[in-house]
Amino acid sequence: MPSPSNALPAVLDRIDAELDNSVRRLFDFLKIQSVSTDPAYAPHCKAAAEFVAKDLASLGFDASLRPTGGHPAVVGKANGGAGNAPRVLFYGHYDVQPVDPLSLWQTPPFAPRIATTPDGRKIIVARGACDDKGQVMTFVEALRAFKAVTGSLPLPITMLIEGEEECGSAHLFDFVKRNAAELKQDFALVCDTSMWDAKTPAITTSLRGLVYEEVRVTCADRDLHSGLFGGAAQNPLRVLSQILGTMHDKHGRVTIPGFYDGVKELPRDIKAELKKLRLTPKEFLGGVGLKIPAGEKNRMLIEQIATRPTAEINGMIGGYTGEGAKTVLPAQATAKVSFRLVGDQNPKKIQDGFRKFVRARLPKDAKVEFSNFGLAPAIQLAFDNPALLKARTALKAEWGKTAVTVGEGGSIPIVGDFKRILGMDTIMVGFALDDDRVHSPNEKYDLTSFHKGTRSWARILAALAE
Amino acid sequence: MPSPSNALPAVLDRIDAELDNSVRRLFDFLKIQSVSTDPAYAPHCKAAAEFVAKDLASLGFDASLRPTGGHPAVVGKANGGAGNAPRVLFYGHYDVQPVDPLSLWQTPPFAPRIATTPDGRKIIVARGACDDKGQVMTFVEALRAFKAVTGSLPLPITMLIEGEEECGSAHLFDFVKRNAAELKQDFALVCDTSMWDAKTPAITTSLRGLVYEEVRVTCADRDLHSGLFGGAAQNPLRVLSQILGTMHDKHGRVTIPGFYDGVKELPRDIKAELKKLRLTPKEFLGGVGLKIPAGEKNRMLIEQIATRPTAEINGMIGGYTGEGAKTVLPAQATAKVSFRLVGDQNPKKIQDGFRKFVRARLPKDAKVEFSNFGLAPAIQLAFDNPALLKARTALKAEWGKTAVTVGEGGSIPIVGDFKRILGMDTIMVGFALDDDRVHSPNEKYDLTSFHKGTRSWARILAALAE
Repeated sequence: MPSPSNALPAVLDRIDAELDNSVRRLFDFLKIQSVSTDPAYAPHCKAAAEFVAKDLASLGFDASLRPTGGHPAVVGKANGGAGNAPRVLFYGHYDVQPVDPLSLWQTPPFAPRIATTPDGRKIIVARGACDDKGQVMTFVEALRAFKAVTGSLPLPITMLIEGEEECGSAHLFDFVKRNAAELKQDFALVCDTSMWDAKTPAITTSLRGLVYEEVRVTCADRDLHSGLFGGAAQNPLRVLSQILGTMHDKHGRVTIPGFYDGVKELPRDIKAELKKLRLTPKEFLGGVGLKIPAGEKNRMLIEQIATRPTAEINGMIGGYTGEGAKTVLPAQATAKVSFRLVGDQNPKKIQDGFRKFVRARLPKDAKVEFSNFGLAPAIQLAFDNPALLKARTALKAEWGKTAVTVGEGGSIPIVGDFKRILGMDTIMVGFALDDDRVHSPNEKYDLTSFHKGTRSWARILAALAE
Repeated sequence: MPSPSNALPAVLDRIDAELDNSVRRLFDFLKIQSVSTDPAYAPHCKAAAEFVAKDLASLGFDASLRPTGGHPAVVGKANGGAGNAPRVLFYGHYDVQPVDPLSLWQTPPFAPRIATTPDGRKIIVARGACDDKGQVMTFVEALRAFKAVTGSLPLPITMLIEGEEECGSAHLFDFVKRNAAELKQDFALVCDTSMWDAKTPAITTSLRGLVYEEVRVTCADRDLHSGLFGGAAQNPLRVLSQILGTMHDKHGRVTIPGFYDGVKELPRDIKAELKKLRLTPKEFLGGVGLKIPAGEKNRMLIEQIATRPTAEINGMIGGYTGEGAKTVLPAQATAKVSFRLVGDQNPKKIQDGFRKFVRARLPKDAKVEFSNFGLAPAIQLAFDNPALLKARTALKAEWGKTAVTVGEGGSIPIVGDFKRILGMDTIMVGFALDDDRVHSPNEKYDLTSFHKGTRSWARILAALAE
C-alpha cells in the first residue's frame, strides 16, 4: 500500500476524473431540504443525516445517527494511515438556512444546477451549495479518492457532522461534553470558512473572544435642574464620558492596565504575508462611507480587524434625549462596552481590569454598577502549530499562492468548545468566496472551489499523514 | 423739607406705627384673585391692576393701566427728591400663581390671615403673600411713609407693575421696547428675590446666561457589526466621549479656549463675605444624595453655584440602549451640552468656542452637526456699582448683618431685557425666605419680612437719594 504522499498524484488524478460524479453526489445532498430552524423540516434533517451516515459508511466509517436532544448528529469513525499518523476530528454541518424570500431565487433552492457567471465561472447554485454541504463534500470527496486509489483513508478520522449549526448548535455543547472521550483527537479540521480571494487560499487561525459589560453610573438620587445644581452636583454623563473617553490613548491603544496581557506579536513571516495582501481602507471601509482605520495607529488595517483586541462602546444613554432643550442634570448614565479578545487574553481578567479601570476613575459622589452579557476567550492557533504549517504548504502547492492566515471577528462557538472541553486545536480551511451569497437567495459555490477544495484536502491529508 | 436721610428716623417710626394698616392694605390686595394664566380670572387681574394704580395715585403718581396685548401693566410716574437724585424704575407684578391643588390649602388662598408658626413667627398666609404682592407692597409702604413724613417721595420714581409674570411675561418685552424712552431710568429696583436666610439680607447681583447646543457625530453611513468592523471603523460614541470627556480638566475647570473670557474675579471683600456664609456641601447637596462639590476645585461651593460659569452634558444617546447585549458599532451619537454664563461672557463666542473645540478634536471619518437651543448672556452687576454699595449699607443698618451678594442660577428674563433694551442695571433686593412655599399651597410671607422689608426700602431709598 503506497503512503498517502506517494499516492497523492494518483489521488489528485482520481479527483479530477471523478469531478462530475462528485458534483452529482453533492447535488443529491443539496436536494434534501434540511432547514434546521423550522420543525416542519425535521424529517428532511433526518434524511440528510442518513445521507451522510450512508456515504461515510461507504468509505469504511463506522457511522451512525446520534441523538442530541435536537436534530441528530452524525458520528463516523474510521482507521487509516500509518501507526504514527495523527488522529483528526472533522467537523461540519448538514443543515442549511431557511430559503425565504423564495421569490428572490432564480431557480428553486433545492433544485441544484450548474450555472455560468457573466465572467465565465461555473457555479453550483442551491441552498447549502457552499454553507456547508459543498464545503463538507470537498473533504468527503478527498477521502473517497484516497479510498479508491489506496484502499484506505490516509489518517484515522472521526467525523462529526451536526444538524443544528444554522440555529445556534443548541445541543452540540452538551453532546461534545458527554462524548468527550470519543471526540477528542489530536486536532480538528473544519471546512466552514472563506478564501482570502478567488485565487488566494486562507486558514483561519483565530477567532476573537468577547467580554460584554454594561456600566451604570449614578450620582444624585434624582434628576436635577442644571440651572440650580449645575457646576456643583456631579454629572454622571460627564463621569462616564471622562472614563470611557480615556479607554483609548491617542494612538488608538486601549489604556486599561493589563489589557494586552496574553496578546502575542505576530511572527515576522506571518506579518509580512498579511502585509502583502495590501488590504486597503478603501476596500474594507469604503463600502460603509469611511476612509481611515480607527484602530491602533502602528498596526496594519488587517491586523486591526483580525488579530488585535478591541474595546468599543456599543451604546450609551443618559439625561434628556428628546427634541430641543431641557436643562436637566441627570441622575444616571449607562453605557454598553464590549471587548473583542485575541490570543491568551483572559476574559475574566479583562472584565476585572475594565471594572477596576472605571472604579479607579470614579469621582466621589458617583456610584457604579456593572452587568455582564458575555465572557468568552479567543481561539488562537499557534503560528508554529505543525499541522498548520503542513496545511499551508499543501495549500500553496494546490493554489500556487501562500495561504493567508486570518482571524475572524465573529465566532464559531464549537471551535471554542473543542479547545475548552477537549483541549483540541482546530485548523479551519474553507473555500467560500465573498460573493457566495451564503444565507441569502441564490447561494452558490464555485465549481473551482469545490474541485480545487477537494484537491486541497487531499494534499493537506497527505501532508498531515507524514 | 428735610432731606430723605434726615427724615429717615421719622419715616422708620411711621412704618412701625402704620404696620397694622399696612397689613390691612396688603390683605385688600391679596383678596383679589389675580391668577394670570387662567383667562377666567382676567377681570380679577384688571381689578388688581386698578387697585395698584389707585394706590399709586394716592401717593402722587401719575398712574394708569396700559394695554400690553395681555393683562394690562400699571405704569406710574412721580417726581421726588433733590434735582440730582437718581431716577429709578421699580418693577414688580400683581399677578399670582394658580392655587391648585386647592384641597391642600389650610384656609382659602384668597382669604389672607395672620398665623403663628410652631416656632413663634407671625406669618401672612395667602396666595401672593410673598410672590409678589407682599414684596411689592414693602416698596409701596416705604414710599407711603416718606410721603406722610416729608410730603413727597425721596426720588423720582417710575413704577412698572405687570400682570403676566407668572405666565411668562409674554407681552412685556414688546411693551418695554415700545416704551423704552419712558421706562429707561438711571437704574432699576426689583423686589422679587430672597434673603440669604431669615437673619441675613441678600442682593442678587447676577443671573447666569445660557448657551444650549446639540452635537451630533456621524461616522459610518449605517450601524455596523462590531465583531467585523470593531477596531477599524470609527465609533461616534468613542469620539463624543473623548471630546466631551476633555471639556473639563482634572481641577473641574472648563478647557474650551477662551471660555473664561469676560469672567471677572470676585472682589476680595465680596469673596470674604461669601466665605463667611459657610455654605456646606451637606446643606446644599445632602438633600439630593450628594456630598462633594463637582465644580472648580479652587472655588467655594457658593461660587460654583452662583458666580462661576459651567458646562454640563444634559443628555447623550447612541447605539444600543435596550436590555442585554447587541454588538453594534453605531453610525451616530448625539449629546446635548449647555453652558451657564456669568459676567461678560459672550454667548456667541462661547458657542463658537465649543463648536471649534469639538471640530478640532474630531478624527477624520467623523462628521459633526450642531443645533442651537439657547443663546443668552448673563446679567452681572458691577460690584462697585454705587447704587449697589448704598443698598448694601442700608440693608446692614436694618438687619445688623452685611447683605450677601448672590447669583441666581435661574433667570428673571425682564432684568436681561432692561439691560439689553434699556441699557439699565437692576438691583434685586427681596425678603422671601426658603420656606415661603412660593407657587405652592399655603404660601406665606413672614410678618418680619414685610415689616423689616418696608424699613429696608426706606433706608435704601434714603441712601440712594444722597
